[in-house]
Amino acid sequence: MAEKYVYLFYEGKASMKNLLGGKGANLAEMTNIGMPVPPGFTITTEACTKYYEDDETISDSIKLEILQYIRRLELKSNKQFGSNENPLLVSVRSGARASMPGMMDTILNLGLNDEVVESFAIKTGNPRFAYDSYRRFIQMYSDVVMEVGKSYFEKVIDEMKDARGVELDTELTAEDLKELAEKFKVEYKDKTGEDFPQDPIDQLFGAIEAVFRSWENPRAQYYRRMNDIPSSWGTAVNVQSMVFGNMGDTSGTGVAFSRNPSTGEKGLFGEFLMNAQGEDVVAGIRTPEPIEVLKDINSAVYSQFATIVETLEQHYRDMQDMEFTIEEGKLFMLQTRNGKRTADAALRIAVDLYDEGMISEKEAVMMLDPKQLDALLHPQFDPKQLKISTPIGNGLPASPGAATGQVTFTAEDATAWAKAGKNVILVRLETSPEDIEGMNYAEGILTARGGMTSHAAVVARGMGTCCVAGVSDLKIAEDGKSFQLGGQTVNEGDFISLNGSTGEVYGESISTVPAKITGDFSRLMDWADKYRTLQIRTNADTPNDAVQARTFGAQGIGLCRTEHMFFEADRISAIRQMILSETVEQRTEALAKIEPYQRKDFEELYEAMIGMPVTIRLLDPPLHEFLPTNPEDIKLMAENLGVSVEDVEYTISTLHEFNPMLGHRGVRLDITYPEIAKMQTQAIINAAVTVKKNHPDWPVRPEIMVPLVGDVAELKFVKKVIKETAESIIEESGLEIDYQIGTMIEIPRAALTAAAIAEEADFFSFGTNDLTQMTYGLSRDDAGKFLDAYYDKKIYEADPFAHLDQTGVGRLMEIAIADARTVKPAIKLGICGEHGGDPRSVEFCYHLGLDYVSCSPYRVPIARLAAAQAALNEAGN
Amino acid sequence: MAEKYVYLFYEGKASMKNLLGGKGANLAEMTNIGMPVPPGFTITTEACTKYYEDDETISDSIKLEILQYIRRLELKSNKQFGSNENPLLVSVRSGARASMPGMMDTILNLGLNDEVVESFAIKTGNPRFAYDSYRRFIQMYSDVVMEVGKSYFEKVIDEMKDARGVELDTELTAEDLKELAEKFKVEYKDKTGEDFPQDPIDQLFGAIEAVFRSWENPRAQYYRRMNDIPSSWGTAVNVQSMVFGNMGDTSGTGVAFSRNPSTGEKGLFGEFLMNAQGEDVVAGIRTPEPIEVLKDINSAVYSQFATIVETLEQHYRDMQDMEFTIEEGKLFMLQTRNGKRTADAALRIAVDLYDEGMISEKEAVMMLDPKQLDALLHPQFDPKQLKISTPIGNGLPASPGAATGQVTFTAEDATAWAKAGKNVILVRLETSPEDIEGMNYAEGILTARGGMTSHAAVVARGMGTCCVAGVSDLKIAEDGKSFQLGGQTVNEGDFISLNGSTGEVYGESISTVPAKITGDFSRLMDWADKYRTLQIRTNADTPNDAVQARTFGAQGIGLCRTEHMFFEADRISAIRQMILSETVEQRTEALAKIEPYQRKDFEELYEAMIGMPVTIRLLDPPLHEFLPTNPEDIKLMAENLGVSVEDVEYTISTLHEFNPMLGHRGVRLDITYPEIAKMQTQAIINAAVTVKKNHPDWPVRPEIMVPLVGDVAELKFVKKVIKETAESIIEESGLEIDYQIGTMIEIPRAALTAAAIAEEADFFSFGTNDLTQMTYGLSRDDAGKFLDAYYDKKIYEADPFAHLDQTGVGRLMEIAIADARTVKPAIKLGICGEHGGDPRSVEFCYHLGLDYVSCSPYRVPIARLAAAQAALNEAGN
Repeated sequence: MAEKYVYLFYEGKASMKNLLGGKGANLAEMTNIGMPVPPGFTITTEACTKYYEDDETISDSIKLEILQYIRRLELKSNKQFGSNENPLLVSVRSGARASMPGMMDTILNLGLNDEVVESFAIKTGNPRFAYDSYRRFIQMYSDVVMEVGKSYFEKVIDEMKDARGVELDTELTAEDLKELAEKFKVEYKDKTGEDFPQDPIDQLFGAIEAVFRSWENPRAQYYRRMNDIPSSWGTAVNVQSMVFGNMGDTSGTGVAFSRNPSTGEKGLFGEFLMNAQGEDVVAGIRTPEPIEVLKDINSAVYSQFATIVETLEQHYRDMQDMEFTIEEGKLFMLQTRNGKRTADAALRIAVDLYDEGMISEKEAVMMLDPKQLDALLHPQFDPKQLKISTPIGNGLPASPGAATGQVTFTAEDATAWAKAGKNVILVRLETSPEDIEGMNYAEGILTARGGMTSHAAVVARGMGTCCVAGVSDLKIAEDGKSFQLGGQTVNEGDFISLNGSTGEVYGESISTVPAKITGDFSRLMDWADKYRTLQIRTNADTPNDAVQARTFGAQGIGLCRTEHMFFEADRISAIRQMILSETVEQRTEALAKIEPYQRKDFEELYEAMIGMPVTIRLLDPPLHEFLPTNPEDIKLMAENLGVSVEDVEYTISTLHEFNPMLGHRGVRLDITYPEIAKMQTQAIINAAVTVKKNHPDWPVRPEIMVPLVGDVAELKFVKKVIKETAESIIEESGLEIDYQIGTMIEIPRAALTAAAIAEEADFFSFGTNDLTQMTYGLSRDDAGKFLDAYYDKKIYEADPFAHLDQTGVGRLMEIAIADARTVKPAIKLGICGEHGGDPRSVEFCYHLGLDYVSCSPYRVPIARLAAAQAALNEAGN
Repeated sequence: MAEKYVYLFYEGKASMKNLLGGKGANLAEMTNIGMPVPPGFTITTEACTKYYEDDETISDSIKLEILQYIRRLELKSNKQFGSNENPLLVSVRSGARASMPGMMDTILNLGLNDEVVESFAIKTGNPRFAYDSYRRFIQMYSDVVMEVGKSYFEKVIDEMKDARGVELDTELTAEDLKELAEKFKVEYKDKTGEDFPQDPIDQLFGAIEAVFRSWENPRAQYYRRMNDIPSSWGTAVNVQSMVFGNMGDTSGTGVAFSRNPSTGEKGLFGEFLMNAQGEDVVAGIRTPEPIEVLKDINSAVYSQFATIVETLEQHYRDMQDMEFTIEEGKLFMLQTRNGKRTADAALRIAVDLYDEGMISEKEAVMMLDPKQLDALLHPQFDPKQLKISTPIGNGLPASPGAATGQVTFTAEDATAWAKAGKNVILVRLETSPEDIEGMNYAEGILTARGGMTSHAAVVARGMGTCCVAGVSDLKIAEDGKSFQLGGQTVNEGDFISLNGSTGEVYGESISTVPAKITGDFSRLMDWADKYRTLQIRTNADTPNDAVQARTFGAQGIGLCRTEHMFFEADRISAIRQMILSETVEQRTEALAKIEPYQRKDFEELYEAMIGMPVTIRLLDPPLHEFLPTNPEDIKLMAENLGVSVEDVEYTISTLHEFNPMLGHRGVRLDITYPEIAKMQTQAIINAAVTVKKNHPDWPVRPEIMVPLVGDVAELKFVKKVIKETAESIIEESGLEIDYQIGTMIEIPRAALTAAAIAEEADFFSFGTNDLTQMTYGLSRDDAGKFLDAYYDKKIYEADPFAHLDQTGVGRLMEIAIADARTVKPAIKLGICGEHGGDPRSVEFCYHLGLDYVSCSPYRVPIARLAAAQAALNEAGN
């Protein structure tokens, strides 16, 4: 059998969504369960894929197949393409596997031409309707197929309305509309050099090709990237007999939801317009009526529709979003799909459907998009105010939520202003560890550079603070007192707003509504936990973060970055003294000053986690990150430490690195200065002893994690230092402390030599941020400059720092896991890269067989839900 | 059977070198072929390994085994440990698998104590000899076993000589020497807190342990690292009955070679001393006599020795290096081994032995250490002058050869001074592409930073210029007019000398002798080529390099780095104009200026390679490398291009990268600016067309190589640009040009997704420099700062940038090769990292099944020889 690229609606069904697209599959389903659907057929997504394989042409064999289906449609509808007697008019609409509202193109009234329109006017007895349909068709076709700009047509219409002295399109007469159609055709010829096509078959192929092409238009590409839809899916094309809502006052068109998409409240929710075609409802020129009003206009149609809605919701067992048209008093269904909804609504609908007995717990768990939970956990913009605001720029959605405040350009100002009661947004070229306090005080953080795992992004997510990163168009003025973005100059103290969930930046204040967690949330998360097997830990550096994460359901800390504790004023001086040390003795002395602080940090962290495991990573960043960069701070540091400015400058110059990411950091610090590992172990174990004494019933389980290991010999060396230090403290304490020593797998070589490393490690934690950087040879801080070109040219479909690259990085993980489990079947395996909070990556980790994923506190619920869905998906639920 | 850790000499043979060490195996062999060897036994290298496994203790079971062998030795020699009647005295000497002369420790005369020495004096009738032996023993034991410094003992001897008014040790009387022994024992007790051990068994275990320990002394570690000897091999220990060359005028000791180790000339070559123990020959206090003089002193012994030498050379079929002792007129052989020799001698001996019918061609090929060829291809220091010079510092042996000249600190000065007829050494913190001209004019290059694959190292090797890189102790003064190293201040214009083969830096002028290639060289390389299957290409950027490499036997260019062509004055301006461009048109216009230059470069390169394949890599470095860094040059650039200084500074600031190694470079440039790939393809193909026209019989085979690919989509994108450009030029020319498009595999992800990439590539070239950096997460420019700690702590045994890491990087290569060959069995595979010239890595590449290795021109002969040896090794030759 030759491949089949076209299906009549009655040949399909809902489960064929991958092939027929969502719209096509649901039209087929509705057709087959007896709904009033105008006849039509669907050209498959595979035809779209083939179109791109064939260098953007529709092959002759597919064209032939389409023509055969047009013939069937003609027979079925008793109409004929190009006929003056009984012309077949069709709509041509895109319909991808995943719903992408408004992203692709639609053409209505296809089949009209100069002749057909005349007889159509006569036959319908409604010339105004006929010419209106024709001018709409020319306009849409020109725009979509030939990419002739819309604005010209709008101008011509406006000119005519002015000339006639009318305000609404509907006030134009049939003659006016006929004249418009003529004018449009002239413009078409002017712009394209060709006559407007009169043969309906030419029109049809032009339209189908346009829909295929629209799959790769910039807004579709952008939408897919934002929503993780692969470019390889392609779109289907639906060709359907036209029904007309614009045939007069007994005709109309509308959209409706089976439940309120904002709140989830049960009940029909929608709007409609009489004597209108689909685009009029959304165009905003005439104000649509609430759906209830239809009852008064045509109560039979209304109750037929209400019954259909009920049936469809029961049939799909989910809230439905539907389009309908009434043609001369007769109802037609043009679309149904599971409706998009807000996070609040999604939660309520899932729980309500369960309570109504329509779905099971498992199905309720599967119904929520984990990413939507963000909106429940972070403040959001007031939707009404958002509607009338336009962003002045956008960057990466680095940390979700919404924030409004006054611009400050330094962390010091952010702190001071916030203490003075202002809401501030901290704007930086990029943030550095020194900015930590200001970041903590800020409502939101905005950076010009840096990617999804830049310092700003990582820290902000940890804090649950809204952050937009890598806004590459943002230019900070030389005096650091204003910035330029989207043609607007924003001065220090001006209000701006950030949407950390979309990456949008607004040059004005937009009020926000606070996050709220309802009882429905806990119910749903409890159901999720029932089916989840993957453990969820959190990346937390402070007791606050830890408590927050535990509230959200974290089962331990998977990554505590100790260096974040080094920047507070009283500690940084000791760190700097350590860096300036020339002998082991000097270094040990400086480190001894830090130990009590670290110990206290760890005590608080253990307390916060009430006995759950706490993974603490030894110092990771290169030492130069702890040194000041501007002359003033250098002078201050020299004074504080009683050394010369030259000495400090010399140290800074010797620590300079060409590629700090690949430099003297992680375990390499412990190899050169074992004193550091020793001090940190002392702090970790001493703290564990204290907490164990206070809570003898808690297990208290520190897991000491050595970063950046690339060779087992590194781990062996540091492990010896850790073990000797830990065991002497434990022995002295007389307690039993169950500590473990493990390593990050974040260097490709570590994954490739995992068998040897596993011999020495109690656990592995995949540090997929660095592992991604090194596997790709891609610096997360520099990639922002060219990643856009990579998306535009379809080299990358997604940011590998946001979604784990399953092909390359994933293969390294598979190698490491298989090899490690061969030598040590019970080795504990987790992930602590930012991917741990990305649903798609969580699913991948589940399939890899990891024991846990660890993510920032505000992503813990997302990971919980994603992990449950992964388990249910695998079990076939 | 329990494991056996000890072998009597007659239980071993030459082939047991891995177990018995070189010395032990050869003592066994000599014993078994009837040579006069004092009896003894060997404690195996496995015992040494076990010693380290057992936390640096000799296990009781091994001690027991040793004692049993001491008993056998006592029976065999009719002497007894600690006996006054007939005391057994032994030497305890190290002997590793590979010869490490002088790196480890030796103890003679072990078995003497206060009592034994008395009766020994009486029994030998030579009290002076007895006390001399005893004081030597105490001295050696103290030094080696208890690590009591030698200097004290030297001082005591000098004081005594002063007191006695004598000059030579031999003028001291028996009584003097006895007194010395007493003083030494007191010092021993002072320093160690213990009496000098009187029990010979205690002495023996102390000595054996000291030898094991000496395997890890710093100089042994350093030697191993320089000579690629794994730490896991361990050393054997030889315990042998003493024979005495210091028993009077009929006794003596000496060393000899069967051929001249400097020239290779056939004939006995050596020296000896009568009435002396081994160390006196080398100590330089008395001047040894040439070996021929022995004929006059004891012609019977001389001719016995000459016969033995002849026998041993025939037996081992190689030049021998022997130690002998004459005890009261009786000859004893104490060692034989294949002699170390200069490169000249090695070549001559291999060819002579073949001509003498002693060895086959294959054996001659196997006889040469490929690394030794360096010395034949580069100037070397005059050995006489070198002997009296001490280095003031050392760094990495980045490019071999020797150089002497006056210090300059800028490339401009180097050029100017060299043009004025001076020999200059260019000293830089690190070099950058802008320095290229000065580097070319310099005799040698010295840098304070950077590793084996830093810019300086790579460029110097390409030019065949001596280079010492990464001398981390070197401090350049702030004014850039002097540097400090090893306590010496070296000013601009001062003479220094560099040994690029060892990394040593001398603070003075040392004369050099030029390289010379003899007929023997060509004969041997021809033999090598007969057995070699791996192709050898070269990394060459200029016609000069290419011709040089072809002379050395290169079979094509494996890597031409096009960016090196961009720095000449007339081109850099166009490049900078390209970088400042804001539109595609501007960029294309700037690139068009560069194309004719590039085209000419490629024409010359094809001409130089007379039709062999030439692999040309598209532009690789980040664009900021082409921009000036100091204000003066920035101003000049702005003037030249007619833009403002601010514009230039702004461009520089936007191009700044945190980790340039992982930044916007390689194929990423072609994705953002396809115009670059287009221009380079035009130049490559246009040049090929011209050369093909001039030489219709040459194949002319450009291979266009896309760098830094990490995803097949990148290659696909650029391939399309290349193909369209190339094919239109070729079509127009009417010629057939056989060009290929391939990629570097230098990013871990490329190796991990090699199957997909192979579908689009005609060839892979493993860029193991970057692949090593990314697999290790280790910047070659920054690693120098901590690699020493890694060597000291035995984390790394070798520099992964010098020797390919077979475990990690090698595994990635294996994955890539297997996957690529699955989808495209005939894909051409090569390597163009610096490892291509490292013999051990060449052997690995041979086993991986690569088609070729590519290395800098001066390493081509090394690679040829190494490849031949790999093939012969595998075939069991």
